[in-house]
Amino acid sequence: MKRSPFSLFGLLGVLGMVGLGSAQEDPLVQKAEAFFRPLPELKDVPSPKDNPTTKEKVDLGRLLYNDPRLSKSHAISCASCHNLGLYGADGRGFSVGHRGMTGVRNSNATLNADFQVAQFWDGRAKDLEEQALGPMVNPVEMANDSHEDVVRTLQSIPGYRAPFQKAFPKDAQPVTIQNAVRAIAAFERTLITPSRFDAFLKGDTKALNKEERQGLALFMDKGCSSCHSGVGLGGTMFQKFGVVKPNPDAKDLGRYVVTKDGSDRYVFKVPVLRNVAETAPYFHDGSVWDLEKAVKMMAELQLGVQLSESEQKQIALFLKSTTGHPPKDALVIPMFPASGKETPRPRD
Amino acid sequence: MKRSPFSLFGLLGVLGMVGLGSAQEDPLVQKAEAFFRPLPELKDVPSPKDNPTTKEKVDLGRLLYNDPRLSKSHAISCASCHNLGLYGADGRGFSVGHRGMTGVRNSNATLNADFQVAQFWDGRAKDLEEQALGPMVNPVEMANDSHEDVVRTLQSIPGYRAPFQKAFPKDAQPVTIQNAVRAIAAFERTLITPSRFDAFLKGDTKALNKEERQGLALFMDKGCSSCHSGVGLGGTMFQKFGVVKPNPDAKDLGRYVVTKDGSDRYVFKVPVLRNVAETAPYFHDGSVWDLEKAVKMMAELQLGVQLSESEQKQIALFLKSTTGHPPKDALVIPMFPASGKETPRPRD
Repeated sequence: MKRSPFSLFGLLGVLGMVGLGSAQEDPLVQKAEAFFRPLPELKDVPSPKDNPTTKEKVDLGRLLYNDPRLSKSHAISCASCHNLGLYGADGRGFSVGHRGMTGVRNSNATLNADFQVAQFWDGRAKDLEEQALGPMVNPVEMANDSHEDVVRTLQSIPGYRAPFQKAFPKDAQPVTIQNAVRAIAAFERTLITPSRFDAFLKGDTKALNKEERQGLALFMDKGCSSCHSGVGLGGTMFQKFGVVKPNPDAKDLGRYVVTKDGSDRYVFKVPVLRNVAETAPYFHDGSVWDLEKAVKMMAELQLGVQLSESEQKQIALFLKSTTGHPPKDALVIPMFPASGKETPRPRD
Repeated sequence: MKRSPFSLFGLLGVLGMVGLGSAQEDPLVQKAEAFFRPLPELKDVPSPKDNPTTKEKVDLGRLLYNDPRLSKSHAISCASCHNLGLYGADGRGFSVGHRGMTGVRNSNATLNADFQVAQFWDGRAKDLEEQALGPMVNPVEMANDSHEDVVRTLQSIPGYRAPFQKAFPKDAQPVTIQNAVRAIAAFERTLITPSRFDAFLKGDTKALNKEERQGLALFMDKGCSSCHSGVGLGGTMFQKFGVVKPNPDAKDLGRYVVTKDGSDRYVFKVPVLRNVAETAPYFHDGSVWDLEKAVKMMAELQLGVQLSESEQKQIALFLKSTTGHPPKDALVIPMFPASGKETPRPRD
């Protein structure tokens, strides 16, 4: 499933600069291009060979992402913990799931989520398709007993037949769990949020103001961008939480739980920072609510750097310039097809 | 807050018939006009004198309706139990609220909800504005300790100031609970769902097929329409659940709890039947999942009528012709303004 030839975006960036004229003389743009990549246009978002994005899959995925009947209680959808209006997260330390139970890690945003090496804080799912399987059967999330339960529900809803058939026209029985997560992933690949920072990377040097430029320069000079890089400003690697100084509150062993490799203790996926100003609280444990405080902590624990208050503020202002709007079509709540006589009842 | 001159819609209906030509000779249309009224055009939906609908209020109301930060846990919005994709209800017997607690009555649909004498199954709120106050402070729903808590949250979110100011430009401090519920009510007044049945009422006699026409005729001839009448096919009066035969499972005293009047035992608001085929389960206790069974029960308990299976089916098919689509603008998930430093944290 490797894809996404960054060189193509680099080339587009260069073409953009030529058009606008001034970027060639702006060393900050040139420096930033070494670390970051702008989001592609929606039509150019890469998709895996075995799940090419189509409009029909995206439409089906939007239905499934929002339909609470994918949970045991019929009260929790993907959108419950990944609310698109809350930038694909939920604004809580830990999400609320089945019977009001809470999880143990902060909800990862579903916006711009495909530009990552793996999914979940511990990287236990290799891609969006695999990720979507997890919460459906997590006892404290959507709490289905099995994926077969989910399929039974979907197959029992007469109005789901046509959209599955359209999305997977070659399949004799298209209503399967694999096709469901393919459609959800295809929908999620459309959840990109172009921002002023993208305009800047493409050569519009006035897209960032003076303080944001200073924040960007600090973000690179202090070393933040050595991990928070790429299209997502993060998501490209795993790192220990507490490289220079240990995180005093560390309870969660992170990726170690997945790999059982001692060197993975306290290791987490470096999170995507796009829209980070909108997605408090921060860190895998949702322990910090203030973005400037999170920036300060990261500098200390990961880089051994003490930032001044004005430096924290400038970096936070720069990060806020990555706030963007998802495509309008993605935000339309679909009207769900009615349950059928065989549809399992909600269970608490 | 009385309004909605039905005579105007009647006149429009007559004009519509003249245009289409055949309704004057269709006695079923003429008979139906004695019981039902088509939905108004969106621009003509009436609003109360002290809360005239404006685009700015509707936009703010859409934000508030969908924002889970109006709840104590920040996990429950109006839309949680009144999911627009599920036709303004939630497809459960009783809704899930704070800490996974459940309520005691089935969620009333918010679609076409303004065409009613009162709100809630027991009519304890006189209008949509008053209704919206209830769930915010219901301990098993959004669970705020007080409406002041909700206002504190809203005032703490910097990005709410501008939309409140736009919606209530004459108010020095527009972020109040009264304005919040005015905006939610204004948004809800846009949630109308024109259907094939409306086209029929306006004179398009071919909008219903033969079985649906038979169902409509039965619905009137058997007496259903003596209560389920008006714009909403219901919502215009209160009635005892179990007029002819008592409801054997009756536990809920209904409107008696509000009025303490002995004659209000087991009395409930006659529910709106628009979109009823999409909003199972049925009745105040959400006890029946099958529409035909609900029709059969109502005929027996309320009218002393035994319907044949084909009659139940035809009535259900007629009711399904009232399924309609809310306005597209109403279905767009808004991007919520970020919480501020003073915003109260979610509490479980």
